[in-house]
Amino acid sequence: MTSGPTAAFLIIGNEILSGRTREGNLPTLAAGLGTRGIGIAEVRVVRDETQEIIAALNELRASFNYVFTSGGLGPTHDDITSAAVAEAFAVPIIRHVDAVRVLAAHYKRLELPFNEARRTMADVPEGATLVPNPISAAPGFQLQNVFAFAGVPDIFHAMLEAVLPQLVEGTVVLSRSLRTGLPEGVVADALRELQAEHLPVEMGSYPRMEGVRWATTLVLRSTDPTALTAAFDAAHALVLSLGGTPSEE
Amino acid sequence: MTSGPTAAFLIIGNEILSGRTREGNLPTLAAGLGTRGIGIAEVRVVRDETQEIIAALNELRASFNYVFTSGGLGPTHDDITSAAVAEAFAVPIIRHVDAVRVLAAHYKRLELPFNEARRTMADVPEGATLVPNPISAAPGFQLQNVFAFAGVPDIFHAMLEAVLPQLVEGTVVLSRSLRTGLPEGVVADALRELQAEHLPVEMGSYPRMEGVRWATTLVLRSTDPTALTAAFDAAHALVLSLGGTPSEE
Repeated sequence: MTSGPTAAFLIIGNEILSGRTREGNLPTLAAGLGTRGIGIAEVRVVRDETQEIIAALNELRASFNYVFTSGGLGPTHDDITSAAVAEAFAVPIIRHVDAVRVLAAHYKRLELPFNEARRTMADVPEGATLVPNPISAAPGFQLQNVFAFAGVPDIFHAMLEAVLPQLVEGTVVLSRSLRTGLPEGVVADALRELQAEHLPVEMGSYPRMEGVRWATTLVLRSTDPTALTAAFDAAHALVLSLGGTPSEE
Repeated sequence: MTSGPTAAFLIIGNEILSGRTREGNLPTLAAGLGTRGIGIAEVRVVRDETQEIIAALNELRASFNYVFTSGGLGPTHDDITSAAVAEAFAVPIIRHVDAVRVLAAHYKRLELPFNEARRTMADVPEGATLVPNPISAAPGFQLQNVFAFAGVPDIFHAMLEAVLPQLVEGTVVLSRSLRTGLPEGVVADALRELQAEHLPVEMGSYPRMEGVRWATTLVLRSTDPTALTAAFDAAHALVLSLGGTPSEE
């Protein structure tokens, strides 16, 4: 399950850490990478502090095939992602001429001033490739295996779509889910045996409360469709044998 | 802003990483710790893999005053948090007699079998203190500065409430938010100066799209109420001077 390319997601986010804003880009990233057979192996949320961003980025980019960051690409004083990535790679920040051109055209079209604050959105680490932003022009960028995207969900999504085709493909992980009204304590022993009999399939068990009763969703994942079908059928039979009423989600 | 006690949140979560389940406990943890003046400095989501949990836990518990974990305390084969925490602290797993007693009474009351899978929910690292679970009995635990909680939101919340009174208090961070219809590019230059003039107040700027227009929310945080009021009034005046219509959120 973890043999394909791996990714980490680094969220630069005082607003996430404070609980004020709910993070919403992880499902988008997971779904997009999933279509390429790339699994997210770790997520970190760090403060808007240059040294914390650098430390996390250097650890993650050494550990995983890809690192995606979100947030901190805007024009305000708390937008420090480009500078932090540059420092992590020990390269200077440069004002990218293509980014200046794209931004200048964008603000001209909107009849808004292209002031110095807006120009800072063209600053990227030297050697970075721009990632286009079809919504508000200010680009993201790629430097080696690091992709820096905006935190605004629609822009994050668009930037991800723009880079997906260039990522190394792994084998897509297939998933099937089985809802049952049985509590985990009833399925646990038999499920442990089932997992041992179906090693190419990763079986997760997730409890949920339905009123005052516990119920369980089994999630089966595998890169092997035949193994997944066999495991799913066995899990379905198992739930029936325990007196449950399985239904596929 | 970062001088008080700090916390990290370690989410054990294949289901979060896959994007299938949205993480919902972070706002609860942030709000609860906030009432004690404890800030969340970092969040990590790692896979349900013992060595990954151990590595993250050992890094976080050395770096922050408190570490909270969520998930992996149930009766199924993929519930490995207790064993991982024990291994991180290099202590054995024991079957806690008080936890057995609480669970036995719970299942007796529900007239459900207290089978071996359910008994495993009484297994905690040696030396751990139990954290009560008023909803479904299976306890969380504390070992030194690490608190292991269930991932189910209602139970996570109850466990947090149970331990909050014993945490070392910091100075509560106060926050005020100002909505403005101005885009970030218009407020950025003046906001940078304002931040420099109000150093005890951390000023964050968060863009949002309102239809096709950009707007900005300024979030001001400080432990000093007088400084916060002064900064808020200055930010309010700034937005007015730029032609915006500020409103407090």
